[in-house]
Amino acid sequence: MAPPLAGLWPPVSTPFRSDGSVDEGRLVQHSKQLLADGAHGLAILGTTSEANSLTLDERRRVIDAHLEAGIPAGRLMPGTGACAVGDAVALSRHAGEVGAAAVLLLPPFYYKKVSDDGLFAFVARLIEGCGGHAPRIMLYHIPPVAMVGWSAELIARLRDAFPGIIAGMKDSSGDAENTLAMLKAFPEGFAVFPGAEVYLLQALRAGAAGCISASANINAAGIRRLFDGWGKPEAEGQQAELNAVRKAVEVRVMIPSLKAVLAERYRDPEWLTVRPPLLSLPEATRTELLADPAIVRLLAAVPT
Amino acid sequence: MAPPLAGLWPPVSTPFRSDGSVDEGRLVQHSKQLLADGAHGLAILGTTSEANSLTLDERRRVIDAHLEAGIPAGRLMPGTGACAVGDAVALSRHAGEVGAAAVLLLPPFYYKKVSDDGLFAFVARLIEGCGGHAPRIMLYHIPPVAMVGWSAELIARLRDAFPGIIAGMKDSSGDAENTLAMLKAFPEGFAVFPGAEVYLLQALRAGAAGCISASANINAAGIRRLFDGWGKPEAEGQQAELNAVRKAVEVRVMIPSLKAVLAERYRDPEWLTVRPPLLSLPEATRTELLADPAIVRLLAAVPT
Repeated sequence: MAPPLAGLWPPVSTPFRSDGSVDEGRLVQHSKQLLADGAHGLAILGTTSEANSLTLDERRRVIDAHLEAGIPAGRLMPGTGACAVGDAVALSRHAGEVGAAAVLLLPPFYYKKVSDDGLFAFVARLIEGCGGHAPRIMLYHIPPVAMVGWSAELIARLRDAFPGIIAGMKDSSGDAENTLAMLKAFPEGFAVFPGAEVYLLQALRAGAAGCISASANINAAGIRRLFDGWGKPEAEGQQAELNAVRKAVEVRVMIPSLKAVLAERYRDPEWLTVRPPLLSLPEATRTELLADPAIVRLLAAVPT
Repeated sequence: MAPPLAGLWPPVSTPFRSDGSVDEGRLVQHSKQLLADGAHGLAILGTTSEANSLTLDERRRVIDAHLEAGIPAGRLMPGTGACAVGDAVALSRHAGEVGAAAVLLLPPFYYKKVSDDGLFAFVARLIEGCGGHAPRIMLYHIPPVAMVGWSAELIARLRDAFPGIIAGMKDSSGDAENTLAMLKAFPEGFAVFPGAEVYLLQALRAGAAGCISASANINAAGIRRLFDGWGKPEAEGQQAELNAVRKAVEVRVMIPSLKAVLAERYRDPEWLTVRPPLLSLPEATRTELLADPAIVRLLAAVPT
């Protein structure tokens, strides 16, 4: 029996060495810290992880490095989406074979204005390609970046066609109304994870299963507190503080901002490195970010 | 001395077997037919070729299959863009090693609203990764699909930084004004190829070097005639006929429409197959397309 998909699953930031290569050692160390901070599992290889800037071999190695470090496969939800179905099959099949909790599946995102029938065919081909090793699938809806998304109609068709495989979705539309509509459309047996914690309290009250959010890389403990205590009186105040942290990284460029905070937390400038087309924050912006009161409070509170 | 980049370079459609695998034999046959029809070279692995639906190994094999069939590398301009710079390096380096005329480089297209500095860093990393084998680069500007593009300012910077490598651009913005602006901005030593033949006459009069257009897969002879004779009185009429053919495939879905015409020309239904998320044309649409007067005239005129 597969464990329920619920709780806080940070999309783990990927550290690079100064020569641009993936630093698997530091990556796994960060993943372990996130679990220690309260994460239920790890959504490795997501957008925040710069997964699409990694080759297929590098992505496979990221999964394997976690297993080799003793992190159970059931704690991993790797992103396995790709424009080429052959690539998505290779990585999803691997995730299924090792026993990952689920995979987080981007739609193929090169062609735009593709039909739901075409996306259905992509998922069907993917599942067929995984054979007996098909993992559970969390549909990854992030139209501001992918520009292609999973509609409610398509999700309903996929659930009917592949029961037990289509397990839920991450909604990174940035639109609370969309998340609430999905919770209403699929009240049973479908795990809806808001893609940001900014409306987490509202979503949890409506039945959200958990949260996969970029800023969980720096604020896992805080998000976990709200997840555990959303029925308590202090929840509103906790939500406000989460939002202050989120805003500090969001108004700059999200991915390098998170890495700037991680570099500070871990006292390790290697964390500043990103892969092109992303760039590290300019020095002045980094200084400004680290002086943001919400970030100052955060760094004072987290274990280092 | 590298040959000039000029003339008609069709972005060659990729045939798939019914099981979805790339049919290299039929692909090379089609490439040879395009050269026989008047193409100067072959822009294999472009958007029309469904290149982003192919794995890296499949893309490499497409290049190699052309060489093995005796097509000179100097006639090939493979698309080598990818979201991951490591993938773009692997394919570009291979193209450089075998002596391809140039590569057609998409910008990394997953992250949106990236900076010109970030795109510059991507290209610099790519060229550095190719070492002594860096091929000439044609920048592939297709914002309606990639959503990320090459600005004139960035092109100027890249030309300054990498003279002899940044050789030109394919402008698939769909905007004649943008093509004319690029021709004006870079009048010397920079080959501008409109990404569609609908304003080819206008672009050739303004100094365009050639054309890379999806519909060249079905109308190479017609486009070549205009390319050779754009100064002649019949050019306007030729442009109008090219546009009628283009419109017939464009108002349906372009890539499967082209394959439907190729299936008819070659009397080979295998050509109908596309990879998801694209879908073959519905039967009724295909019948309608093949009954379009411009397509009827085209198929009556082309050698089969």
